Amino acid sequence: MTATQISALSLSAIAKSTRQAARQLAILSTEAKNQAIEAIAQALEAATPEILAANAADCQAAKEDNIAKPLYDRLKLDETKLKGAIQGVRDVGRLKDPVGEVQLHRELDEGLILKRISCPLGVLGIIFEARPDAAIQITSLAVKSGNGVILKGGKEAVRSCEAIVKAIHQGLAQTSVNPAAVQLLTTREETIAMLQLDEYIDLIIPRGSNSFVQFVQDNTCIPVLGHADGICHLYIDSTADLEKAVNLTVDAKTQYPAVCNAIETLLVHSAIANKFLPIVAGALQESQVELRGDEATCQILDIVPATEDDWRTEYNDLILSIKIVDSLDDAIQHINTYGSRHTEAIVTEDLVTAETFMNQVDAANVFHNCSTRFADGFRYGFGAEVGISTNKIPPRGPVGLDGLVTYKYKMTGKGDVVATYAGKDAKAFTHRDLG
Amino acid sequence: MTATQISALSLSAIAKSTRQAARQLAILSTEAKNQAIEAIAQALEAATPEILAANAADCQAAKEDNIAKPLYDRLKLDETKLKGAIQGVRDVGRLKDPVGEVQLHRELDEGLILKRISCPLGVLGIIFEARPDAAIQITSLAVKSGNGVILKGGKEAVRSCEAIVKAIHQGLAQTSVNPAAVQLLTTREETIAMLQLDEYIDLIIPRGSNSFVQFVQDNTCIPVLGHADGICHLYIDSTADLEKAVNLTVDAKTQYPAVCNAIETLLVHSAIANKFLPIVAGALQESQVELRGDEATCQILDIVPATEDDWRTEYNDLILSIKIVDSLDDAIQHINTYGSRHTEAIVTEDLVTAETFMNQVDAANVFHNCSTRFADGFRYGFGAEVGISTNKIPPRGPVGLDGLVTYKYKMTGKGDVVATYAGKDAKAFTHRDLG
Repeated sequence: MTATQISALSLSAIAKSTRQAARQLAILSTEAKNQAIEAIAQALEAATPEILAANAADCQAAKEDNIAKPLYDRLKLDETKLKGAIQGVRDVGRLKDPVGEVQLHRELDEGLILKRISCPLGVLGIIFEARPDAAIQITSLAVKSGNGVILKGGKEAVRSCEAIVKAIHQGLAQTSVNPAAVQLLTTREETIAMLQLDEYIDLIIPRGSNSFVQFVQDNTCIPVLGHADGICHLYIDSTADLEKAVNLTVDAKTQYPAVCNAIETLLVHSAIANKFLPIVAGALQESQVELRGDEATCQILDIVPATEDDWRTEYNDLILSIKIVDSLDDAIQHINTYGSRHTEAIVTEDLVTAETFMNQVDAANVFHNCSTRFADGFRYGFGAEVGISTNKIPPRGPVGLDGLVTYKYKMTGKGDVVATYAGKDAKAFTHRDLG
Repeated sequence: MTATQISALSLSAIAKSTRQAARQLAILSTEAKNQAIEAIAQALEAATPEILAANAADCQAAKEDNIAKPLYDRLKLDETKLKGAIQGVRDVGRLKDPVGEVQLHRELDEGLILKRISCPLGVLGIIFEARPDAAIQITSLAVKSGNGVILKGGKEAVRSCEAIVKAIHQGLAQTSVNPAAVQLLTTREETIAMLQLDEYIDLIIPRGSNSFVQFVQDNTCIPVLGHADGICHLYIDSTADLEKAVNLTVDAKTQYPAVCNAIETLLVHSAIANKFLPIVAGALQESQVELRGDEATCQILDIVPATEDDWRTEYNDLILSIKIVDSLDDAIQHINTYGSRHTEAIVTEDLVTAETFMNQVDAANVFHNCSTRFADGFRYGFGAEVGISTNKIPPRGPVGLDGLVTYKYKMTGKGDVVATYAGKDAKAFTHRDLG
């Protein structure tokens, strides 16, 4: 057997034990799950010195490997950051339990009662990069939603993740949650093998670069929650309030350019381009934003010409492409062609134009007169976010705890057979909604 | 270019036109969609002679090809069957519009209002076998849910499907729905090419044999709604009422053995096996059911021994495998190992046992003291069914019109920027649910 085959075998055994533990976790009461979450918080507090020491070793090794500065910043844990993560665990404990919600309660006939009830998905597979605190957040969300979780951290964070998961296991050992419900994988071979474990893993959540998420999407038949690209647009309509338009453009581009809900392309209606572009360009250049324009834009602004590639690029940086369009329809057409179905916004004072844009643009989030940067589970008031999905099928957009559960139909009868309701003397169903 | 490449090219152009037409259909009012549905019904009525003539030609060719009797029965349309299908179109017209439902309405801050609103998925890809009436049903469901649809019928039904879609196009031509929203493909090459069109198709619904559905699931990255196997179990607990148990076993196996929600395996608690098995075997054999048993069962009944393969087989026929288990846990374990997550039922007079079974069995439908045959969208009162999904991620179980829509987040502000809510003077969100 090759190393990959051996790894696949042992991984399969690990995943099977997670599945078993998750089946027990799935039926725990809210109280029992909250106790487990508090035990995790306390264990992480107790293990703070060990976790910080492990992280220091990871950081040392990362420095020797000359890893990129942003990656290093995400890797580095200090006491404040760890305290924040532990606070986050307790915050999740206070969120509403997504399991057990009765979504439908219907009498099919006297004594034949159907309920649709939310229940955990089963086992989550989470693949994340440098940030070791992601292991903490995801574990608390998994426990709260009644799911087992298989964590695969980046190799640069292996010591930190091991110390964190060791503490989590110690915490869970005194609770109703079997520690086997939370597993840590550490090698790259295991990632590949994990993507094949559709028997044991019900949902994959990849966190990382666009190309990595794309790789995961292309190499598994397990449902994937998340998004590869975040190519978001802001369209400035001919009826826009130009002050709002400038403020929204600057916020959507510069408030945090490295994130998925920042804009990459500004679309401007030709009727206001001459007036608006010089103002917005000044404001953006004050914030060190590099501008690239289509031909029409370059006749107004002295900036670099944009190429076809620019419309397809998520810069994740202080760069913005600009295109002049002649109509709302052209703007919608551009967005539906190049957008990644993430977040799209319009600035306009015309309500009909706004409504047309929001109806016809194909994206999880469509905004009118507000910044694309609001597309976020915390800002939406979900209390937690496992990611933003650009899938068409729900869960879509910012996904909170509710995205980690599914439902089942439970029906109780008194010996009812279908033959009663079939054939020429078929009894009719009552189909009466209850409660 | 090969024939497949040419076909892929023209198919891509077809799918693109469906996408465009679907974008317009997506935003039509309920009234406009219902008018289009009524126009379809009238056009089908007017074209009845042409449709029946085309079907007669299909049936003639099918006879010459010696196709199997059940396939021929599904292919054959007569006036009554066509009338029933047209009545089905009008029934769909009367169902509640699944589009435009406000699922969340929240103030994030004064004047910054978030709504989550249901909207069409976009374009459905439906692949079905012989039954030409499926094209009628699916088209009405697609229009009602605001989706475009690309239909791929079986080659044996090509003349019937062409006549049906021609009538549908004639009907739609006088309405707000662009006929391009409904397309028909007829060649096998197109099926393969269609599975690659993730840019234009948002959901695939395959209807056909288990192996065909499996093939579709394995060969597309487009989400697939449906199920391959329907391996359902009935577990007779030690506290079961034996009369109920016999009736439920007979109904679940024999009322319609060829369908996915019929049972394939009967699990019997050892404490009642001696008493129960001879009674149920008598009743089943009266209905010509062939029985296959595990070793313990064969010591009580004189029947064929079951092999490991039997536990994994969907007979779709009057055959039932029987296994004796020593506990509820063993029953759950067997079901979670061999079941296809479709529909699983328990017969017991003990409510705690029933609840444990329904919580721990991993299936879309879990029943207590009623027949597995109830797992069906019409019986659940959904008014229409596009299929039964055994996916973990919703939509799951019997899927009605609601499974053909997704949602988007729409937010309206007054120029709001995220910078206001970040940093050390960050303003707090109000997160107040409205209406």
